[in-house]
Amino acid sequence: MPHEIPESHPRRISLLTRDKLIAGFNNKLIATAGLIAHGRGEAFDYLIGEVTTKPAKRSIDAAAALLLSTENAVISVNGNVAALTPEDVVVLARLTAAALEINLFYRSLPRELAIQKVLKAAGAGQVMGVGKAAGALIPHLESERGKVDPRGIKKADVVLVALEDGDRTEHLINMGKKVIAIDLNPFSRTAQYAQISIVDNVVRVMPALIERVRSYLAKKFTQQDLEKIVKAYNNKTILGNSISLINRRLTELAQKGVFL
Amino acid sequence: MPHEIPESHPRRISLLTRDKLIAGFNNKLIATAGLIAHGRGEAFDYLIGEVTTKPAKRSIDAAAALLLSTENAVISVNGNVAALTPEDVVVLARLTAAALEINLFYRSLPRELAIQKVLKAAGAGQVMGVGKAAGALIPHLESERGKVDPRGIKKADVVLVALEDGDRTEHLINMGKKVIAIDLNPFSRTAQYAQISIVDNVVRVMPALIERVRSYLAKKFTQQDLEKIVKAYNNKTILGNSISLINRRLTELAQKGVFL
Repeated sequence: MPHEIPESHPRRISLLTRDKLIAGFNNKLIATAGLIAHGRGEAFDYLIGEVTTKPAKRSIDAAAALLLSTENAVISVNGNVAALTPEDVVVLARLTAAALEINLFYRSLPRELAIQKVLKAAGAGQVMGVGKAAGALIPHLESERGKVDPRGIKKADVVLVALEDGDRTEHLINMGKKVIAIDLNPFSRTAQYAQISIVDNVVRVMPALIERVRSYLAKKFTQQDLEKIVKAYNNKTILGNSISLINRRLTELAQKGVFL
Repeated sequence: MPHEIPESHPRRISLLTRDKLIAGFNNKLIATAGLIAHGRGEAFDYLIGEVTTKPAKRSIDAAAALLLSTENAVISVNGNVAALTPEDVVVLARLTAAALEINLFYRSLPRELAIQKVLKAAGAGQVMGVGKAAGALIPHLESERGKVDPRGIKKADVVLVALEDGDRTEHLINMGKKVIAIDLNPFSRTAQYAQISIVDNVVRVMPALIERVRSYLAKKFTQQDLEKIVKAYNNKTILGNSISLINRRLTELAQKGVFL
């Protein structure tokens, strides 16, 4: 159902993003559950005001530092991410020397190949986690959901996940990984478990992360500088701030009588 | 893509509901927009705590009384409702002598027939609003969205809608109908316009409505008793209470930072 969205529409970017997602669904990148997840994200994005909030900026600062200071970082890519922001994911991986790995909740080889194709078209080098390459398992997680690449997530120190399932996040943390989560829902188990939870829309986070990484590189931050930034970060406080911010906004909306 | 959800999973009901919705999508009951809308509902369900709140219970009390005291009540059924709770919708219609009418945002005969089939399988008698039967129009609403059955919504006094579009709710009210809305988003135009807005998940509302209707019937409430309940109900107060409840919940969660 393609349709014209006027330049002046107040929620133009959100509607264009939805169209990209539906195109990704039609191109077999995304499972039906990915559409529902996107709807959940839309509602939370509306609640935070469809902008990168102050707490999210602090999480992005810490995430950039953690990615740059880590030996083995992996960016986990699912269908929604590939449909929404493939170019930025590839740039971020290159700048931080992170690996790219396809990791899906509903795994199927056609979907893996479709996502790989999109990433390659966006300039990706190696793409891990495709087909038999996803030959290792996350312990105690049932087989399809638990499949990971032994060269990638299996041996990673840090995994960046976007729109991730709570169970898998928990299991990654039980494996000793540090998890950076991009999740618009500050109540999700993923946001609650992760060491760094960026409560923001992935289409805004990726360029902001790239910009932050570039600024750290330009300032020639040392390993010690980066570790200091990570150490100073408190995810619990930041999540609390994100929730307070939603609460303030709901109160305002209720007082104004503005409709969602 | 069926998968086992462990009995112990903290969000088991939400995940089972999602699976039902996806099955409905695969069975052509639901448009892609319906999947995204479900996700938005899931987000608001988190905010209210995935339970029927006190204000929602008051709305359910009033809705049951209004349905029982009305001559011409219609339960409007869309794809999401048919996928999620077909049996309860049929029982509620029978208990309250309400008609069932299929009313869709993205109308198509195959979808209407698929929904009709699900309702019939759930025990429905007559199902209105299918094909040429939807031969009347809601005034000033563009044709596909405005199609209604002249025997049903067109002449109804009360229409129960679930997950309804704001424009259409507004137009129903302009036609002089009383609208009972089931909508998890208390800020939605539907929730704001309706005379009775049940801010709760349709899968919890339907059994609760049935139970309330049965208790009124068992107590042999008179027309006067029922009208008194409806008259005492104030939707503006109840919506305010729903929003306050979300505020309180978010304040608590923000203080805790982590709620798992």
